[in-house]
Amino acid sequence: MTFPPNLDKLGIRKAIDEASKSYSEGGIPIGSVLLHSDGTILGSGHNERIQKSSATLHGEISALENAGRLKPEVYRNSTIYTTLSPCSMCTGAILLYKIPRVVIGENVNYVGGEDLLKSRGVEVVVLDDEQCKGLMKRFIEEKPEEWNEDIGEF
Amino acid sequence: MTFPPNLDKLGIRKAIDEASKSYSEGGIPIGSVLLHSDGTILGSGHNERIQKSSATLHGEISALENAGRLKPEVYRNSTIYTTLSPCSMCTGAILLYKIPRVVIGENVNYVGGEDLLKSRGVEVVVLDDEQCKGLMKRFIEEKPEEWNEDIGEF
Repeated sequence: MTFPPNLDKLGIRKAIDEASKSYSEGGIPIGSVLLHSDGTILGSGHNERIQKSSATLHGEISALENAGRLKPEVYRNSTIYTTLSPCSMCTGAILLYKIPRVVIGENVNYVGGEDLLKSRGVEVVVLDDEQCKGLMKRFIEEKPEEWNEDIGEF
Repeated sequence: MTFPPNLDKLGIRKAIDEASKSYSEGGIPIGSVLLHSDGTILGSGHNERIQKSSATLHGEISALENAGRLKPEVYRNSTIYTTLSPCSMCTGAILLYKIPRVVIGENVNYVGGEDLLKSRGVEVVVLDDEQCKGLMKRFIEEKPEEWNEDIGEF
């Protein structure tokens, strides 16, 4: 898949909007967007652990869930944007649907399954975005227990 | 974790009940249960692709979602039962929460991330259950397109 690079700004901006929305709701500030190569936003969402008492609605899962049922070829022509390195569940979802490209806001506060993605041929781009890093750092300092619960750690 | 083996019958029976319920609703017949070593059913669920137009509510994700927010130590003392070998997303969810034991009804109709689970130290038990195999085989024959969509294949 050749993905138009000019769409990356749109994708990550929308993912950051989702993360900021979650933070403003008192939630974990991780957002995600599934964007087709034709420029269509297929779905977007943010972490819903706190808002919906959800154990599975991470940012990426929310975006995929909000996108609804899609044909295999749609995923294969899309990029998923996420403000933070995807955990093993979200990594697995990306592999399930064979999404060929993942753009990650930052991987300083957490590193997920990037190596597994790369080993399966997924293109991984890390932006090292200051806004993503700052928002996540702030949340982890404010609510360390909620954050640890979200990644299955003590 | 030492998991009482006598609980396995309860766990897989309940998972099969969930799968049968989904089939009777016209849905994909995969069910799952998260069971604590103290015998508490923490959550159960089934695939909701057809019922809820969901791209992420596989059996295992449904069970984890229905269990709600849990502390890390709860997952680490639990077994997850699933009627079918878990896909990469559900495998990743098991790894995220460090669930130490997975009991699988069958892996004839589909093989998911069993090798990855084992490589990360998860105990994987495959029951090769006739009821699980038969129900899944029937669904795949009846609705091959829905099944392929669920596993991201053409």
